[in-house]
Amino acid sequence: MNRPELLLVLIGFGHVARRFVKLLDEIADRLDFTWKIVAVATKHHGSVVDLEGIDMARAIAKFEGSQSLDRLDAAPRERSGIDVIRQVADALADEAAEGRLICVETTVLDIDRGEPAVSHVRAALEGQAHVITANKGPAAFAYHELEALAESVDRIFFFEGAVMDGVPVFNLVRETMPAVTIEGFRGIINTTCHYVLSELERGREFSQALAEMQMRGIAEADPTLDIDGWDAAAKTAALVNVLMGSAITPHHVARTGIKDVDGLDVRDALGRGKRVRLVASASRVGSKVRALVEPEMLDKTDPLFSLESLDNALYLDTDLLGQVGIVQRSSGLTQTAYSLVTDLARISQRLREF
Amino acid sequence: MNRPELLLVLIGFGHVARRFVKLLDEIADRLDFTWKIVAVATKHHGSVVDLEGIDMARAIAKFEGSQSLDRLDAAPRERSGIDVIRQVADALADEAAEGRLICVETTVLDIDRGEPAVSHVRAALEGQAHVITANKGPAAFAYHELEALAESVDRIFFFEGAVMDGVPVFNLVRETMPAVTIEGFRGIINTTCHYVLSELERGREFSQALAEMQMRGIAEADPTLDIDGWDAAAKTAALVNVLMGSAITPHHVARTGIKDVDGLDVRDALGRGKRVRLVASASRVGSKVRALVEPEMLDKTDPLFSLESLDNALYLDTDLLGQVGIVQRSSGLTQTAYSLVTDLARISQRLREF
Repeated sequence: MNRPELLLVLIGFGHVARRFVKLLDEIADRLDFTWKIVAVATKHHGSVVDLEGIDMARAIAKFEGSQSLDRLDAAPRERSGIDVIRQVADALADEAAEGRLICVETTVLDIDRGEPAVSHVRAALEGQAHVITANKGPAAFAYHELEALAESVDRIFFFEGAVMDGVPVFNLVRETMPAVTIEGFRGIINTTCHYVLSELERGREFSQALAEMQMRGIAEADPTLDIDGWDAAAKTAALVNVLMGSAITPHHVARTGIKDVDGLDVRDALGRGKRVRLVASASRVGSKVRALVEPEMLDKTDPLFSLESLDNALYLDTDLLGQVGIVQRSSGLTQTAYSLVTDLARISQRLREF
Repeated sequence: MNRPELLLVLIGFGHVARRFVKLLDEIADRLDFTWKIVAVATKHHGSVVDLEGIDMARAIAKFEGSQSLDRLDAAPRERSGIDVIRQVADALADEAAEGRLICVETTVLDIDRGEPAVSHVRAALEGQAHVITANKGPAAFAYHELEALAESVDRIFFFEGAVMDGVPVFNLVRETMPAVTIEGFRGIINTTCHYVLSELERGREFSQALAEMQMRGIAEADPTLDIDGWDAAAKTAALVNVLMGSAITPHHVARTGIKDVDGLDVRDALGRGKRVRLVASASRVGSKVRALVEPEMLDKTDPLFSLESLDNALYLDTDLLGQVGIVQRSSGLTQTAYSLVTDLARISQRLREF
């Protein structure tokens, strides 16, 4: 197969999914695959299935004009994301069997159970579709179950965007560090908290800084998920599950958020050459993994100390390479959307190898 | 092919090659291939070819006891590295055709022309062997020629160890950043200079710090290659050739070393909150690439500022992901030897996919 045609089912059609659709068009000539979007399911704006390929400019215009996507469907009906996945997997069973059907999952995270994302991934794999997601939920709550399912049907379940957007974390270990064991990690992986703490250093109010992160679309829809450390805990659980072979959920991460961090304390620390940052970490303790998200007092020699307020960084403790760091110095919708492109490119590569 | 058997020809048998041989044994159960070392060629300690597999414990003992490896050969004779490559490629033509013959090149770099490494790589590829090397020379001096040759014979030419040991740089871009364009980079990639400048800050003498780097086996055999910036220039040329698609040699890199850097100036800078560091960088200027190695005055907000004296770091400017950094916080023989393992694992993966 020279340039395979991938058939995409978009479950979730928020900012990330729409930027992804546009990004694919922008970089089409650099990709070793072509694609067709055959379904879009949204929570509040209906859904559309068109096996010939949806006119995405129209779909985006409808969505952004707060109209229902149902109007683009030849036989519109009330259906859930799972209904859409099953409908397409049935209709395109041959293409799914060839490995060309891909579910692109970008729904909003529910931190209690990782739903509905986990169910979407399960339904897609059961329908022989590959799954790529920018959602933390599936890897944080059900990685081992979903990975086993993916292997049993010989499909890919990838989620590079779950941590640090498209900057490679999971791919970094999977693709470039063969035979290496990850002993632990430590990092700053929640941008909203990092920004709020940095702004407190400058004398700004907590609520103002947080409001700015919401306005810029960086904070979660419910910003308490950031502030209480849930977002970092979900990412930490995903990292532990995937890189360290343990099986935990975000509820197993010892978690302290930043809502009780006081601006005076932060500025006092800075006066003494220290910085307060929300740090996510994990280490092996005997046969278990200890996972933590909590504000730490960093001193100047800490590699996390000098990060800019919108940077993320993750330092991996490895057995063969010692400590290796990966740093993200720019973040935004394009970076998150790109994470889906990198996962898609890997599926395409696999198709081309066969 | 489930667990392919790789046949290795070691050209160069210094510290890196010997650590590589031991490391393979140590992590054998994590590797998805088996291997046999069928030839070792050295500059001053003879050579041995044994298609049944060399007893490497004996070979290492002979070498470290300053005895010739010729004694291990059934038909010993005077021969160059190229002679050894050709002899084995002839004798194992079937295995080479199957893609199981691999030349592991670890000779000492000649900064004028990148020889003899470039000739070794060429001879190995002509003999249908894959080539992996920890040597900067081939990628710095002849990347495009050798890569074209490798493609024409459908063989791999990899050199992850050329920059930042086994910490992924080339693999990072090749394997985890599909469709991304590298616009430039900036980093600290020579440990000896980094250490010497850090020690100057502490009031130590230049010559003392350099002597320590030599004693610890980190400085090049000829340390002026570090101090004059040649090592960093060779790495810069390799990065430019591979990541930015340009075709340069180390001689095209505008290069200023650190030998004229004065300890007083370094300490004076530190007093003003700044640090002098040898920085390697490249950027696009129109259709050309401008590559530089020179001492820079870093201020505190620079991501390179807070690196420890033995750390290396490289920040890539990308179009889709913004700035992405990779940081090496531990270095040593194992890290360099591991770079060869990672290249080998990729060859094995390719064999298993077919």
